[in-house]
Amino acid sequence: MPAQGNASLPVIKRLPKYYRYLCMMQKNGITEVSSKYLADTLGTTASQVRQDFNCFASFGRQGIGYEVDKLVDELGKLLFGSGEPLPSIMVGAGRLGSAVSRFITNETSGYKLLAAFDGNAELVGKDLNGVPIYHTDDLEKFCRENHVAMAVLCLPRTGAIALAPTLVEAGVKGFWNFSHYDLVVDYPQLVVENVHLGDSLMSLSYRLRNEQ
Amino acid sequence: MPAQGNASLPVIKRLPKYYRYLCMMQKNGITEVSSKYLADTLGTTASQVRQDFNCFASFGRQGIGYEVDKLVDELGKLLFGSGEPLPSIMVGAGRLGSAVSRFITNETSGYKLLAAFDGNAELVGKDLNGVPIYHTDDLEKFCRENHVAMAVLCLPRTGAIALAPTLVEAGVKGFWNFSHYDLVVDYPQLVVENVHLGDSLMSLSYRLRNEQ
Repeated sequence: MPAQGNASLPVIKRLPKYYRYLCMMQKNGITEVSSKYLADTLGTTASQVRQDFNCFASFGRQGIGYEVDKLVDELGKLLFGSGEPLPSIMVGAGRLGSAVSRFITNETSGYKLLAAFDGNAELVGKDLNGVPIYHTDDLEKFCRENHVAMAVLCLPRTGAIALAPTLVEAGVKGFWNFSHYDLVVDYPQLVVENVHLGDSLMSLSYRLRNEQ
Repeated sequence: MPAQGNASLPVIKRLPKYYRYLCMMQKNGITEVSSKYLADTLGTTASQVRQDFNCFASFGRQGIGYEVDKLVDELGKLLFGSGEPLPSIMVGAGRLGSAVSRFITNETSGYKLLAAFDGNAELVGKDLNGVPIYHTDDLEKFCRENHVAMAVLCLPRTGAIALAPTLVEAGVKGFWNFSHYDLVVDYPQLVVENVHLGDSLMSLSYRLRNEQ
């Protein structure tokens, strides 16, 4: 079932959570689920669930409940596509890059990790969770030859600023961005998912100190 | 200047980004900044910036521009407090925990990392970025004795579900949650910052496959 193309970013950000919970229900042998039950499990409202699913026309069976198998299947297709996994690379093969790369090696994630890149000569030639680490000097050639669609940026802001033009010119369209460089300000055409761990930690600190 | 207590969660989530950019401006010798300039740099609108800052009364100097030093100082106090850093622990000392713990060892982050905990006997007794790794059996006693305010959950969902009651009973109020257990559904009184890396990666996949 094709995406309706009218899902807003907040809806898109909620899809993975629905998918995870529905997979758990499927594993537990649950075959049908109401929007109310889903909402209670996820800590949201039934109306929100119905609204979200209405963005994807084929999901709706209001009043009857949803078939878990079908939802898992449809959501899976939306999230991971039904074709080839997206050729992907890590940029930055340090400790964070190493930890983060494990999320992509999983065959079910819709990505295929091809290689990692680092400017540190001591890392070049080594292996990062099963893929080779090359020097960042080879980034452009590699991206062009392998039609890299997604790059994970696990490097400092200055490094990300320096390498972004190369990656964009070589055709990389998607970025899982752990750096503090807000790529999308300079390249609004890119698809960027920011993970600003430091910001998340600061927000938590604010809330712990100011909310009660 | 005390928080007005009326900042919504989206505003709170934007504060760290303002703080980061203002710190960069301060380093670059910029002393005054308009909401327009801030907005352009951050990829938002001047009206959004003014609205956000209006949640914290003392920031407003509409029409004149903001003093960078003052904003950095006020935002810093809001984000990190002016008192003691928050006693914090890592729960899960594997690869992700090790990478993530580096974000907390920084003295300026408003947290003090005291220890890490893991159920894996091979890790117990070792060191994680300068703090000792203890067995999870010792969690409750340690949290009570050290008035632990924040725990980082870097462990699988099942482990997080099993340990949450212990942590909550021992007085831990804040969670930087990397696990797939949505704590706040079961414990609405907690302050939880979720970092669901797998979800973020799935959203990116969706957008790469369905948006153009």
